[in-house]
Amino acid sequence: MFKLFYAVNTCALASHIALEEAGAAYEAVRLDFRTNDQRKPEYLAINPKGRVPALITDQGILTETPAILAFIAQSFPQSRLAPLADAFAFARVQAFNSYLCSTVHVAHAHRTRGQRWADDPAALKEMQRKVPETVGDCFNLMEHEIFEGPWVMGAAYTICDPYLFTIAQWLEADGVDPARFPKILEHGERMRARPAVKKALAEELGAAKQ
Amino acid sequence: MFKLFYAVNTCALASHIALEEAGAAYEAVRLDFRTNDQRKPEYLAINPKGRVPALITDQGILTETPAILAFIAQSFPQSRLAPLADAFAFARVQAFNSYLCSTVHVAHAHRTRGQRWADDPAALKEMQRKVPETVGDCFNLMEHEIFEGPWVMGAAYTICDPYLFTIAQWLEADGVDPARFPKILEHGERMRARPAVKKALAEELGAAKQ
Repeated sequence: MFKLFYAVNTCALASHIALEEAGAAYEAVRLDFRTNDQRKPEYLAINPKGRVPALITDQGILTETPAILAFIAQSFPQSRLAPLADAFAFARVQAFNSYLCSTVHVAHAHRTRGQRWADDPAALKEMQRKVPETVGDCFNLMEHEIFEGPWVMGAAYTICDPYLFTIAQWLEADGVDPARFPKILEHGERMRARPAVKKALAEELGAAKQ
Repeated sequence: MFKLFYAVNTCALASHIALEEAGAAYEAVRLDFRTNDQRKPEYLAINPKGRVPALITDQGILTETPAILAFIAQSFPQSRLAPLADAFAFARVQAFNSYLCSTVHVAHAHRTRGQRWADDPAALKEMQRKVPETVGDCFNLMEHEIFEGPWVMGAAYTICDPYLFTIAQWLEADGVDPARFPKILEHGERMRARPAVKKALAEELGAAKQ
């Protein structure tokens, strides 16, 4: 039985969807970022980084989306969420997820989390101004250079798909028109039709209303 | 036969060391960032992101340090660079490398690559001002919460070690006193004593002098 700590509208959704896709037994525990749950001592004892997601397993605690996603894929091989038997194909999956966490998510975070890298209000504003350009460039590269279709890696659905889907949710708020990326836009519709995605979204949005 | 594209003083050193540790047959190809080699059409055809490292393999091209490191570990299992048979232990390795790429390297990059996220000179300066604090916080967390010793993950040397070693090289230039982190400082000395590290450093620094 896993326990996934998440907050609404964060990258934790990717791990949430993957747990559903894998048919894992898990409990999703919501943190409320409005009340800074992620900085409270009881959560810092779980994840000293003060971020989501964190996954409690029988063996210990895991953090960082790409690591959690690969762990789910490896723990539930029958769910075929990654090409586990092919080191090169697996590395391509990992490279995509690494790009999402180190470049795309970071570009996005300069809109809402700029205080990680600057304090001066004018600098925060300047960072926000550039977000549509940087996030747009990232999605442009994924649309034209990486995305194979119908899923990120081609014919097989992998742990890249819930992660791309999650980050693509932020495009409009980041000031980027999703219509610029027709393949990724269609991918989002394909994702929303999956029972695992419906269930994870319903759980997160239902919990948020309480 | 692999081909590794690197530039001096970049995170590509981690993959370079790992190839040496694995005993892989490879050629290291140096890009010169001073002449913007990484933005030239011939390199963009290899890695459209215009970044290093990129690893050319018989099966295709890989990018992103955490993915390349895990690929090397999986391709040379006899070199024991990752706990491949234990999904949880492997995920901890991946979580560490993911933290390095998405948080630590990103904190550092606000000193020299701020133009990724802002254009205004005052904002770039403000970002640079905060780098000692943000990079210091990251190393503080690694020193006290993650690093086990003598290697990152404990008794076994893994692909976390060359990556931490690489990023720790940047501390002083980032305005952070490495002496604040005695475990990581000692780790650096332990790394420098390894033949694979000596060879990769000699190759990169020798090539840089030409």
